[in-house]
Amino acid sequence: MAEIKIFFELAIMLLFAIAGYLLSKKFKQPVSIGIIIFGILLGPSVIGLAEYNPTIAIIAQLGSIILLFVAGLNSNMKEVYTKRNFMIALVGAIVPVVGGFIVATLFGYDIFTSIFIGATLTATCLGITSSVLKEIGKIKTDTAKAMIGAAVIDDIISLCILSIVLAVPEKIGPTAIIFKIILVIAFVVFMLFFGERILTWLLDYFNEKVVRSMPKLTFVFALSLVFLISYLAFILGLAPIIGAFLAGVCLSKSRAVNLLLAGSEYYEIIFTSIFFISIGIVVELKAFYTLFWFILALTIIAIATKIIGAGFPAYKMGFKKKDALIVGVGMAPRGEIAFIIALNGLLLGVITKEVYSAIVFMSFLTTVITLVALKMLYNAKGGSSKGLDEEIDFIDLKLKR
Amino acid sequence: MAEIKIFFELAIMLLFAIAGYLLSKKFKQPVSIGIIIFGILLGPSVIGLAEYNPTIAIIAQLGSIILLFVAGLNSNMKEVYTKRNFMIALVGAIVPVVGGFIVATLFGYDIFTSIFIGATLTATCLGITSSVLKEIGKIKTDTAKAMIGAAVIDDIISLCILSIVLAVPEKIGPTAIIFKIILVIAFVVFMLFFGERILTWLLDYFNEKVVRSMPKLTFVFALSLVFLISYLAFILGLAPIIGAFLAGVCLSKSRAVNLLLAGSEYYEIIFTSIFFISIGIVVELKAFYTLFWFILALTIIAIATKIIGAGFPAYKMGFKKKDALIVGVGMAPRGEIAFIIALNGLLLGVITKEVYSAIVFMSFLTTVITLVALKMLYNAKGGSSKGLDEEIDFIDLKLKR
Repeated sequence: MAEIKIFFELAIMLLFAIAGYLLSKKFKQPVSIGIIIFGILLGPSVIGLAEYNPTIAIIAQLGSIILLFVAGLNSNMKEVYTKRNFMIALVGAIVPVVGGFIVATLFGYDIFTSIFIGATLTATCLGITSSVLKEIGKIKTDTAKAMIGAAVIDDIISLCILSIVLAVPEKIGPTAIIFKIILVIAFVVFMLFFGERILTWLLDYFNEKVVRSMPKLTFVFALSLVFLISYLAFILGLAPIIGAFLAGVCLSKSRAVNLLLAGSEYYEIIFTSIFFISIGIVVELKAFYTLFWFILALTIIAIATKIIGAGFPAYKMGFKKKDALIVGVGMAPRGEIAFIIALNGLLLGVITKEVYSAIVFMSFLTTVITLVALKMLYNAKGGSSKGLDEEIDFIDLKLKR
Repeated sequence: MAEIKIFFELAIMLLFAIAGYLLSKKFKQPVSIGIIIFGILLGPSVIGLAEYNPTIAIIAQLGSIILLFVAGLNSNMKEVYTKRNFMIALVGAIVPVVGGFIVATLFGYDIFTSIFIGATLTATCLGITSSVLKEIGKIKTDTAKAMIGAAVIDDIISLCILSIVLAVPEKIGPTAIIFKIILVIAFVVFMLFFGERILTWLLDYFNEKVVRSMPKLTFVFALSLVFLISYLAFILGLAPIIGAFLAGVCLSKSRAVNLLLAGSEYYEIIFTSIFFISIGIVVELKAFYTLFWFILALTIIAIATKIIGAGFPAYKMGFKKKDALIVGVGMAPRGEIAFIIALNGLLLGVITKEVYSAIVFMSFLTTVITLVALKMLYNAKGGSSKGLDEEIDFIDLKLKR
């Protein structure tokens, strides 16, 4: 009989996650931050009621698949894939990798750890930016659209980088790494162009011809496709989560997308809770003191590289200086994807628990600093053009993450 | 990193489960039977694409918790708890235990195995009976109501018996077993009278005062309560699933019950699929030959003891002979709970894989035989009084399992 204690742990984790949700809402912070804080409280560093064990690891891993699938499902927006957004995302992902790598190397970390730390700096978490934009009624502006679009592309790029970085511990040569890069790009391109048609056709055919009277079976079918694509990505040597994300992007074009979203919501809330609580449980609180200067340097470089990496292309692509700066600052917060990459690194043994904890603290700090900086920037710009509510749904999709 | 192969296994299991669903619907058999058959196909006995491993065990165990929780949620029917239904359920549970025990002992099984085999004969699975009743328009009859009510009580009784039987492998004396019986009854009574008020109040307070704007958090809260009560049952030395079932019964009185049902449906379909597929994967096909006579004897005694154990009280409580016979035959199929008890026995090492497989085959046979017998009985009785559709929802609740 599998360990029954898991029921107790799950119950406590869910209760702490609820507390985290409520706290985040109260202080208008991203939900992930609130839950992770309660995860840290629950973990060995403070209360010690729960520990990261193999069972929790499996559930957290299923959680990251579901999270990325839902993220993909929600990224069905034509306005996303513009050249401008792509440039902001690409440069805004590469500059932080390089910056993170340099900082880590300067602090004496070996080359693999440094590359991994760089990789965790790629993806933007728009939660906090969106809520600031909403609050001050700037959600309909052009800067907001650029940030949202670029952040979606950011996710794909960072998952590609993770897939490439995953090859690093195998200590393979440059040829193999180039092969890996080509493979990643080929997989993404294949999924976005052919996979989309195949998966959408399969799901719609199944939903409309095979099971008409049992729509929930379509949900089961979709989930099995997500697991298959995740496994396919893994077989190709990529990160399984990029498969889950791309499966979500593909299936977002299905006519049954509302059914998928309705079902996924209930999984998302449970698995997200457990996932972020586990992220917190693994954090070592003492790393905040022992690695204080590293965390500080990493946070500064994380924000600076996004301001440069995302802000400069925005400026070059036609934004005013001020607006380009807003794009750069707005894209500085790191979140979900950084946590996922860091946890992968920890489980693979590439980074230590201390470094993992440092990355989580860096994420926290980028969020808090962005909150303050963004409000100051908008205040300095002056004038509040109340945004239209119709756009809020659009942003909500990104916000939910 | 937890084994990634789990994604592949989950995908295949879900796809096979879908095939099982579709096949069951086509042949108008209970869904569980169809999925289990596809589980047997998938398992080592035939194709060998999936194996029962610790990860699947955890997911299956979570699945049985969710299944029983939903079963409890759906049992919110005042007409259930009548003295007549209670007598049919009680005698209809005890006689099969005794019958199963005797048959198993005659076939040379030791006392613990025999008690366990007896325990698997307790609970009725109404799926097949309901669909026959629906088909011939007898769903609104008094016999149907008695069967449905008794089957719900049956579930509770069989979970109590499982809890008592769980004490057996510890080889404790009669005093301890009597203590266990008192504990089980006390737990059930406490949950049904006080637990219901406490849990319902907690959930409604949470839903209406704490999270008003985020109803899905109420779902998270409910699940954490289910896990807690399951764990509480385990601490008391009872089966965790009886906790899950009773938590469901309690929360079915909550004002947020529709929210809980909506969310649970999506979990039920995924976890039920995985659960029944695993039930099939573990079955050894060759047991059907090696234990043929035992399976045959067990099936005959399973049907005979329900006809006597459920039919006789029905007759005594005022049914005509013919109707009492219909009640007895209608309650003969075994299903979900038998599988759950058998799987528990296997995981605890009380029964072997062969015996486990024999129990699964016995369940299959009771279903098929009931299907034929029930139609013959109703035909012999003659006249088809088309039932009212309003009752179908009521039956659907039991049918879904």
